[in-house]
Amino acid sequence: MQRNLQFSLSTLLLAATAALAPAQARREICFPDLPGRVTLVCDFHMHSVFSDGQVWPTVRVDEAWRLGLDAIALTDHIEYQPHRDDVPTNHDRPYALARERALQRGILLPMGTEITRDTPPGHFNAIFLDSVVPLDTKDLFTTFEQANAQRAFTFWNHHDWKGEQRGSWLEVHTQLHERGLLHGMEVVNGSVYYPRAHQWCLDKGLTMIGNSDIHEPDRGEASTSAAHRSVTLVFAEERSLPALRDALFAGRTVVWFGNTLIGKREWLAPLFAASVRVDGPYLRTDKHVFVGLENTSDVDFVLAREGNVGPAALTLAAGTKTLVKIAVKDPKAALTLAYTATNLWIAPQQGMAVQIEIPGQ
Amino acid sequence: MQRNLQFSLSTLLLAATAALAPAQARREICFPDLPGRVTLVCDFHMHSVFSDGQVWPTVRVDEAWRLGLDAIALTDHIEYQPHRDDVPTNHDRPYALARERALQRGILLPMGTEITRDTPPGHFNAIFLDSVVPLDTKDLFTTFEQANAQRAFTFWNHHDWKGEQRGSWLEVHTQLHERGLLHGMEVVNGSVYYPRAHQWCLDKGLTMIGNSDIHEPDRGEASTSAAHRSVTLVFAEERSLPALRDALFAGRTVVWFGNTLIGKREWLAPLFAASVRVDGPYLRTDKHVFVGLENTSDVDFVLAREGNVGPAALTLAAGTKTLVKIAVKDPKAALTLAYTATNLWIAPQQGMAVQIEIPGQ
Amino acid sequence: MQRNLQFSLSTLLLAATAALAPAQARREICFPDLPGRVTLVCDFHMHSVFSDGQVWPTVRVDEAWRLGLDAIALTDHIEYQPHRDDVPTNHDRPYALARERALQRGILLPMGTEITRDTPPGHFNAIFLDSVVPLDTKDLFTTFEQANAQRAFTFWNHHDWKGEQRGSWLEVHTQLHERGLLHGMEVVNGSVYYPRAHQWCLDKGLTMIGNSDIHEPDRGEASTSAAHRSVTLVFAEERSLPALRDALFAGRTVVWFGNTLIGKREWLAPLFAASVRVDGPYLRTDKHVFVGLENTSDVDFVLAREGNVGPAALTLAAGTKTLVKIAVKDPKAALTLAYTATNLWIAPQQGMAVQIEIPGQ
Amino acid sequence: MQRNLQFSLSTLLLAATAALAPAQARREICFPDLPGRVTLVCDFHMHSVFSDGQVWPTVRVDEAWRLGLDAIALTDHIEYQPHRDDVPTNHDRPYALARERALQRGILLPMGTEITRDTPPGHFNAIFLDSVVPLDTKDLFTTFEQANAQRAFTFWNHHDWKGEQRGSWLEVHTQLHERGLLHGMEVVNGSVYYPRAHQWCLDKGLTMIGNSDIHEPDRGEASTSAAHRSVTLVFAEERSLPALRDALFAGRTVVWFGNTLIGKREWLAPLFAASVRVDGPYLRTDKHVFVGLENTSDVDFVLAREGNVGPAALTLAAGTKTLVKIAVKDPKAALTLAYTATNLWIAPQQGMAVQIEIPGQ
Repeated sequence: MQRNLQFSLSTLLLAATAALAPAQARREICFPDLPGRVTLVCDFHMHSVFSDGQVWPTVRVDEAWRLGLDAIALTDHIEYQPHRDDVPTNHDRPYALARERALQRGILLPMGTEITRDTPPGHFNAIFLDSVVPLDTKDLFTTFEQANAQRAFTFWNHHDWKGEQRGSWLEVHTQLHERGLLHGMEVVNGSVYYPRAHQWCLDKGLTMIGNSDIHEPDRGEASTSAAHRSVTLVFAEERSLPALRDALFAGRTVVWFGNTLIGKREWLAPLFAASVRVDGPYLRTDKHVFVGLENTSDVDFVLAREGNVGPAALTLAAGTKTLVKIAVKDPKAALTLAYTATNLWIAPQQGMAVQIEIPGQ
Repeated sequence: MQRNLQFSLSTLLLAATAALAPAQARREICFPDLPGRVTLVCDFHMHSVFSDGQVWPTVRVDEAWRLGLDAIALTDHIEYQPHRDDVPTNHDRPYALARERALQRGILLPMGTEITRDTPPGHFNAIFLDSVVPLDTKDLFTTFEQANAQRAFTFWNHHDWKGEQRGSWLEVHTQLHERGLLHGMEVVNGSVYYPRAHQWCLDKGLTMIGNSDIHEPDRGEASTSAAHRSVTLVFAEERSLPALRDALFAGRTVVWFGNTLIGKREWLAPLFAASVRVDGPYLRTDKHVFVGLENTSDVDFVLAREGNVGPAALTLAAGTKTLVKIAVKDPKAALTLAYTATNLWIAPQQGMAVQIEIPGQ
Repeated sequence: MQRNLQFSLSTLLLAATAALAPAQARREICFPDLPGRVTLVCDFHMHSVFSDGQVWPTVRVDEAWRLGLDAIALTDHIEYQPHRDDVPTNHDRPYALARERALQRGILLPMGTEITRDTPPGHFNAIFLDSVVPLDTKDLFTTFEQANAQRAFTFWNHHDWKGEQRGSWLEVHTQLHERGLLHGMEVVNGSVYYPRAHQWCLDKGLTMIGNSDIHEPDRGEASTSAAHRSVTLVFAEERSLPALRDALFAGRTVVWFGNTLIGKREWLAPLFAASVRVDGPYLRTDKHVFVGLENTSDVDFVLAREGNVGPAALTLAAGTKTLVKIAVKDPKAALTLAYTATNLWIAPQQGMAVQIEIPGQ
Repeated sequence: MQRNLQFSLSTLLLAATAALAPAQARREICFPDLPGRVTLVCDFHMHSVFSDGQVWPTVRVDEAWRLGLDAIALTDHIEYQPHRDDVPTNHDRPYALARERALQRGILLPMGTEITRDTPPGHFNAIFLDSVVPLDTKDLFTTFEQANAQRAFTFWNHHDWKGEQRGSWLEVHTQLHERGLLHGMEVVNGSVYYPRAHQWCLDKGLTMIGNSDIHEPDRGEASTSAAHRSVTLVFAEERSLPALRDALFAGRTVVWFGNTLIGKREWLAPLFAASVRVDGPYLRTDKHVFVGLENTSDVDFVLAREGNVGPAALTLAAGTKTLVKIAVKDPKAALTLAYTATNLWIAPQQGMAVQIEIPGQ
């Protein structure tokens, strides 16, 4: 009997040990790959003690591993360095300190920085740099030319922040865009969504980006909708820095913001299709068909019926299988569930039409 | 109006929050299928108000859906019916009440019962019955013959419970076994593991079974190791009642108990192999190789090193990828990590040798 | 060293054991007593297998203990008994089965029932009965007279459910009210709030009630806002059945619904005052005062500034202390924070003015 | 419009959800004050980027607020500064950077440092310094004399770490102790308990200390046993730095480690008594008394029966009320429950005798 007790103890012990959640454990964020593409979860905007952040650069790599991110960029401010008295300016140093740790974990780490000017013109990130130093100039256009000379991908951050002319597309932005120096915009920064930025990306062919802009330590653990970083899903040809850069220049992105996905139908449609799986039908009665709809992604799909088949509202929670009872006339016939996915936005606040096919008998 | 809107938002917030945990959502238990087999998660021992349980029979089906179980059996006591004054005895009724609901959800529901005698001989379950009624006899052997006449699968429950001769293999058990009337044993019942039952299964060729024996409502939600029902993993040729019965008679089972898996090496070895995936190596330095070990199952694998390669102790937590730093002499060579999986028991208290192969360059 | 290991093990073990949450553990719901009154958390509407519920009556008592409820009433339908074939009608039986278990736990258990008529007139509960049997009559007024003859407290349930005339105050309701046979209304039933019922309670002097109307097993554990039952807070002179009845007839109630409290200012104002405690000020600088605001209750207070002192919006989360930085002209002066508590409703969707006093130096 | 509204709801939902966990929310750790004393929860060992830590000094203050700590000391290494190339040595700077933030939150922040020598003699903390700079000397005794000249409280850290002579009490320690330069020892450092240090504290009159020694960001949120920092409970005459120092010199401490409290009976006994409250008895039958035992502290009390009254084993989980059924001969008599609290250690591995009095009728 004593032995028995010991067995139970060791079993319980494991649960306790697991509860301590070892530093090296990573929980993957779940979004399916698209046909011929690898889905990379990316955060291209964050800070360390080398500008106004509160953590050592390597902490950002540890967070990326733990949270299931595939690529991050450290983007300390060039012009704003409130810790300068204690941490002397050294633009390329955050990347240098974090690089080995990223390689050890297979985290893609393009070198980045934040170009930090009063508004207008505002703040911009440049990533995939060889060195930040040449960007530390007075003239904005020189800075952008230096970034582009390094083949960097650049985007306009949180355009609605701050100052009197915040939120406006001005002459300077037109010039940056027309001269091919600016390639994307943050549609989402942290907990804020920018509908105008969303529309401008559609109108001007800019790549949609979503980032955390995190300054504090990240206490998150779960990859669930409830509490995740705002990130960019990038559909790359392979898991590599060159492929990641190519995909950004090609605009192959979707932004994951709270429980909303924002992007072009071109990417959202196959992402939805690859995420939802029909199980069953389990039973066909005279009047009903019972089916399971499995959502393998980390976003809840919030669906509003467009046709007349299926429940009026339907939420497919992340990582679960939902039982659906469908009123039918012919239980043996194939069915098409036609819905609007209200939280997949193909334009500001505009949901996307989706269909789910239920096989017949 | 602004304020009114805020009010309704907080109200709607409620509804939305509630909607995130809909009654019909199922979270799958994660164990991989084996080559040529479907892994079915099964609980063959539970009670309803029709004996000494506290819930209506359909509740057990709802729980099974929510918790990710594939097959359950309602096994109300034949001889012990403390609610008889309010719920008159009706042996086949729990199954009849639950059947339609199980069909709607694709839950396999063999008809079952618990033969409830003083110890010795103790309690036994019979599942895959056509009717419980013929088993309600005085004579134990008649009861077992009736069960076997219906081609039922029978097993001895919690053999160490209760009375003076509890826990002993007696003449009556030898007779049941030798006459082919008894086919399995509970190695685990609820929170108790029985090492002697484990050994008898190995010695006598009985099928190893693990069940919840739940009487109260199940409040569980998670499928994680921390708090799951004791269940039996059955490796069936397909998801069907006949295939499930065949697999039980063939002894193709593993018991999931706390954070321990109990079974024959024949089934545990491929289950481990199919659960663990090597990612990387990410980096090879002069002295180290960095690799990710992903565990896609719902059990933490607790590994103790047998060879001299890899960390001395290694826990691969359920559903996570663990970063492992391996000291090496030749970073380009292929590596074999030789460990004992201390919580995969191929005999009482005895872990199983496992190997993980890391590719070379 | 071996010993050391054992120490850590036993420590960890405890955490694991605690995680299993023993059946007999109760977590109190936190709302302060009011001056001269005991705050009792009550749910007066729930079902068992004796009507259309899914659990044995004792389960409701176990739930009450675990969830921190002080009083419950089992209110099985008189007229609707879908389990009748298996559980023959026996109106007083659910109470009889649950009574001893309630006494053992100090749970107040008034005998109750649900009078279940087509709409109109709808459904009503009667609690504090001596026997349900006399209420099983055809004539609604006879039923109400029988209830009142037993000095029962009666209230109209979910008035907006169901049928063509649902949601209307009709002649029958006027008669019940004017003859003193009807004493309260559900302002909240489960996840639904009824603004019209709220207004009628104010206009007609009916007691405001909030209940769960639970039919399934309750899987809840936490007493936090995120997921609690809809309940009624009753301010009684002592913890006893007579005092509870007196308080209900006197209308001393507040309904806890999601993260909203609904009631008269007479009760909400002292409840807020007794829940919020000022800690500090910690620091007074030239321009700011830093203070901690502790909310000891289980509801988050969501505050919108009415004056010009303090942050524009302020949420005092349940069970936490919130750091507040207040811009001031004179850091030594006493301050009054004037806010509207947007989730304390003194009329439909109407928040309540509150003040928090910060002492001067 | 309807659809637009739904969109903004889901967006606002996000904001609302985020608002539920605001950065400035603090959850108090629950241990009662003792008669005439204030119980302060303290962590006197932690690091920032100014030595080998990974966070900016202010992060430690934010963590203290959030986690419910009352006092912390930043104790960056004097001799070990691996970030020196990027963060030049400046011993008094971490304190200077964190001080204002601590004042704003009412967190007591004695200035501290870690004296970091090879073993022997090992590492030591000095707290309540005026300046760290004078301690940066070659000679260990000079360093200790400088600390004591500033009236600092000093203690030996993790004595079992590291080197050949680790874990030994040597001549140097005798000298430090006999000359009154050393005042306490870490009985607990992070996840490790030191039984020898525990015994030495008892034998030599050293103050028992428990600390986190945290280097990484603290991701914790809960104050529950499952996952809290190792800390020291200090019983001070008031919430102030001088009173905190006095209490440390007077040895008025208990260490909270996992689910274990370690200290002298003098402090553990009143702490237990103030934490446990008897509710009831609810019911007295012929053979049993039913009572609720409420544990208002954040530690689970794990009790083993010494007498013959009450259950053999009894766990009073943190923050809950446990239902206890006591077999009695005379249900009206007063009862004494005599137990050993197995996780209140008054010496290495030695539990403490406790009694709980149940009133008679």
